[in-house]
Order: sequence, then structure tokens, then C-alpha cells
Amino acid sequence: MIETRLTRRFGLEHPIFSAPMARAGGGALAAAVTRAGGLGLIGGGYGDVGWIEDQFAAAGNEAVGCGLITWQLEGRPEVLDAVLAHQPRAVFLSFGDPLPYAAAIAEAGLPLICQVQTVADARVAVAAGAQVIVAQGGEAGGHGARRGTLALVPEVADMLAVEAPDVVLLAAGGIADGRGLAAALMLGADGVLMGTRFWASCEALVHPGQMAAGLAASGDGTLRTQVVDIARGLDWPAPYDIRVLGNGFTDRWHDDPGSLRADAGARADWADAWENGNAELGNAIVGEGIGLIQTQMSAEEIIMQVVAQAEALLNEGWKRHV
Amino acid sequence: MIETRLTRRFGLEHPIFSAPMARAGGGALAAAVTRAGGLGLIGGGYGDVGWIEDQFAAAGNEAVGCGLITWQLEGRPEVLDAVLAHQPRAVFLSFGDPLPYAAAIAEAGLPLICQVQTVADARVAVAAGAQVIVAQGGEAGGHGARRGTLALVPEVADMLAVEAPDVVLLAAGGIADGRGLAAALMLGADGVLMGTRFWASCEALVHPGQMAAGLAASGDGTLRTQVVDIARGLDWPAPYDIRVLGNGFTDRWHDDPGSLRADAGARADWADAWENGNAELGNAIVGEGIGLIQTQMSAEEIIMQVVAQAEALLNEGWKRHV
Repeated sequence: MIETRLTRRFGLEHPIFSAPMARAGGGALAAAVTRAGGLGLIGGGYGDVGWIEDQFAAAGNEAVGCGLITWQLEGRPEVLDAVLAHQPRAVFLSFGDPLPYAAAIAEAGLPLICQVQTVADARVAVAAGAQVIVAQGGEAGGHGARRGTLALVPEVADMLAVEAPDVVLLAAGGIADGRGLAAALMLGADGVLMGTRFWASCEALVHPGQMAAGLAASGDGTLRTQVVDIARGLDWPAPYDIRVLGNGFTDRWHDDPGSLRADAGARADWADAWENGNAELGNAIVGEGIGLIQTQMSAEEIIMQVVAQAEALLNEGWKRHV
Repeated sequence: MIETRLTRRFGLEHPIFSAPMARAGGGALAAAVTRAGGLGLIGGGYGDVGWIEDQFAAAGNEAVGCGLITWQLEGRPEVLDAVLAHQPRAVFLSFGDPLPYAAAIAEAGLPLICQVQTVADARVAVAAGAQVIVAQGGEAGGHGARRGTLALVPEVADMLAVEAPDVVLLAAGGIADGRGLAAALMLGADGVLMGTRFWASCEALVHPGQMAAGLAASGDGTLRTQVVDIARGLDWPAPYDIRVLGNGFTDRWHDDPGSLRADAGARADWADAWENGNAELGNAIVGEGIGLIQTQMSAEEIIMQVVAQAEALLNEGWKRHV
């Protein structure tokens, strides 16, 4: 048992959240993470209300949270309303200013979790009333920015210690095993949020073709890029881009995004390949932690293994070579 | 005392190396780090033999190592010869293939330390006979690449455990206090190499104007860029670029490197500002860890503080919030 402020605040067995991965993180995964003693988050992503409803149904009676892409909520109050109607365990906002949505979440009596990529944005989240800050480094799969987890987490911890000592801090980005959890605790986090490790779970909504490519990959093979969003017609604002597993598509277009914008055929080919799990063309959306993962496991197995490894390390296991 | 394979292999009190920072890391700093129980490395950088000789003289009788930029050694055997003639405690190569230089270092009876930015390059270093691998994440100040420390270190550790179990592993990039050292040990490293923390030491060769800018900065304010090397006329090969503290110069040129190449006046202005410690124009060369540093201290004070904080964390100090 690793007890922290996070486990006590949320009544969890383990200080582990699953990332609300758009598309990949559905209700089955979120429910499995909660059932195993963490907190599972549905990836509400771009705000497809029908999909979100389906995933809450799939989660059944488990207490799961839901994550949303903040800048996608603008002008679409029905999305947040639909999420709040389910009384999720928490609402998780990332990529944009959470302030316009914080009051509705507070009025619903729900904890606000804000994922941030800089110390400056952590201050914005605190000002909006976040109870939990997730400091996400650029190692993370999917959308994010450029700061690295190892230096970002302690700098946010120092800021919170002075300006908001009751706010709980999670580390995210590059954490895929017990080493990452133990390191995060040393850095001043109260727990971790893992995406890529749960992407490679049995419950994630991931095509077997992409899963196979991910399990074979090194973190060396990933990159942050704009071109996957260009392929999907998603107009992500700066400074965010997306970390994916590189392939022929990113080799061709990463340094030439203007040509991709002008090539509807190439964009359609990408979408087709992605739907069909062809990872040679449709990039798997994973982080640098993919290099630490060789086996697809259930969410429960993942949590048990991560916690056991972290406990051993914290209990002098780091001295193994001495 | 934190004893690891690194401290035993090199007969150190503390598992801490100072980074061989070009220009900033001279003999006085290296000697102070060694005297305080770590291993100090002179920043031999671009291979100015006269400067290197001066710095070995400044280090006196302390057992210091020397670092060199590998790709700068090509066609200049006199640089490595000059370093080997001093019988340094170790030779540290970074940024390029170490193989052409490994035999001469081995013949001199000196340990070879290789800094790498990917798992693939760690394999190259092992093949060249490196006894120590420094896995450097992109958080680091100065030159580097894109992988983040938190996921790179354990992936390199996994590779070494299978392919080269006797090779010692250090973590670098974003480590500036005892939290970073403790985290690195959890990730599977045998110690750490710190640059930015020693940049902000009393012994570093840093202009007071740049020091003041660094001590006031957040890691948010740093970026990886090409334009500082363009300003200096240094033709760094891909994939390397340099992390610096951003300012008006990087605001103006970072997205427009071609225009800077064509603007000799702007380049000369940068060089002039840098020499004069004007950090508003001449960028301070620091990493994301700068946000964890508010005080210039002696190298000895730094090492004592980092080790004490790490020891406390490893001894259940991470439970402070429970």
C-alpha cells in the first residue's frame, strides 16, 4: 500500500489515475482502473456526447471521472452538461483555460482536476479552483507541450507549497512502471497519471495492429508533431502538439506540414489506415513510456505490478546494485 | 552517504558528476566538485587546447575528468592527445560516435564515459567500450536532443541490464536538487550528472548578468533552439540543438533561422551581449532545472544540500504529506 494525500482525498487504494485518452480510454478501462483501486477517467476528448454516454454506460456503477479538452468546450455547453449529469467522480480539464467551466463543476459538487504543461498554467488552474493539478511533461503520448516531467513536477510542487498547499499534485508523462511511480513520489507528487501504460491494457479501445506496433517500439521511435492533427482536420492551438509513434507518414510530412494541408488524399489515407490499425501509416498515439512496455495486460494487472515495483523500490529496492 | 555502483567504481563519496559545460565548467569548478566528494569534469567543449591546458592547471592536483564534443574531434587528434596527456580521472564524450576515439582512451588506461540522448546511441556507446553511460534528457541545458529523462533512463537501464550489466548508468537533464537525485535512483540510475545546478555555483565561469537572469527564471522560460548556435557560427549536426533561457533574441529569431543566417549584424550583437552578460540579448545557457534554483552556492554546498535532501527522501521523507 502506498498511501498519499491523493489516496486519502479520493478514498483510493493506489495513487494512480488513468489518463482520459480520447477514443482509447472508454468506460470499460475507466471502470477497471477504479475497480482495481485507482481512479479511472473516461476520455471525453472532443465532446462527442453520444460516445460519452455510451462510455458512462459501459462503466456501469463504478465511480469514474471524465476528461475533456478544454478549448473544445467553447460554445458547446451541452457537452459539460452531459458529463455533469452523470455525477462523475471528478471532472478533468486539459489544454486551455479552465476558468469558464469551473463554476459549473463546483456547483455540481464535483472535484476539478486540471492538467497543465507549465508552472504558469498551474497557477491559472489554482486560480480557477482546481483541487488536483496534473503536471504533464512532454514525454506523454497524445497532446501536450514541451517541458519535461522530471523538472516540471518539482517546480510545480514548490509553487503549490507556497501558493496552494492543499492542492494535490500528480505527475504525468513518461511514467509506465513502478520506477516512474517511485520517482514521481520523490519529485514531490502525490501520485501519477498514466496514459500509455493503460493504452496497452486489455480494456483500452486500441486496434490490435496499433497495439502490436506499440509493444514492439522504443521510446526513441516517438515524436511530437502537428501532422497527425492536420491529417485529422483538428485545429489544435499552440503550444500543443501530439506525441505519436513515428512511421512513414511522419517521416514524409513532419517537416512539410504545409504540403499535407494541401493534400486531401494523403489525409484521407491516414484516416483510413488509422481506422484499420495500420500503424505503418496511421500513427499509434503513445508516449515515450512505450519503450518500457512489452506486454498487454489487464488494468488490474498493470496497477498491481506498478504498485508492487514501486513499493519494493521505496523499501530500499533502489540499492539493488550496491 | 548514498552508496551506489558509481561511488564504489570511482571511489567517490557521492554519486554526483558535474557536467563538462563548455566555457562555464572550468578547472576551479571541476576541482571543487571532486574535492567535495563527487567527480568534476572540465568542459573541454570545442577543443580549444590552450583553454583546456589553463583549466587543468586551475584544477591543480584534484582528480578531475574532461569532457569533449565528439563531432568536434574529427581531424584534430591533438585535442584528445592534449587531454590524455593530463591523465584525467575519466574522458567524457558526447554528441557523436565515440568509436574512433575509444581505443586511444583505453590505451591511456582511462575510463570512457559516453553521454547519450537515445537508447540507440546507448548501444553505440556500449559497443565502443564505454564504462559509464550518461542518459541525458532534453530538459538539460546546453546541447542535447528530445527524449525526456524520466522515460529515457529506465529504458536505457533495461537495455544495459540485458546487454551490458557492468556498465554504470547516470541520469542527466532536469536534475537540480535532492528530489532529482532520489528520483534518478528510483529510475535505475547509479547516480546523476548535473549541469545547470553547477552553472549556478560560485566556481562556474558565468557572467554575473547571466547568473542573475538564471536565478530569477522558471524552467518555463527555457527552450531548445538552433538560433544560438547560428549566432555563434557553430554548425551543430542534427538532431542536436541547445537549451537556453529565452529572451528577445529567441523571440525574434527562433522561428526564422534563415533570416538570422543572413544577418551578420544580429549575430555580432548576440556575441557582444553574451560576452557582456546581457541576458536580455545573449541567452544564458541553462536547462529546465533552473526553475528549482534560486541561490548561487559553492559546489561543496550544492553537493551537501543535494545529498542531504535525497537521503531524507529515500529515508521515508517522501511521505511528508501523508
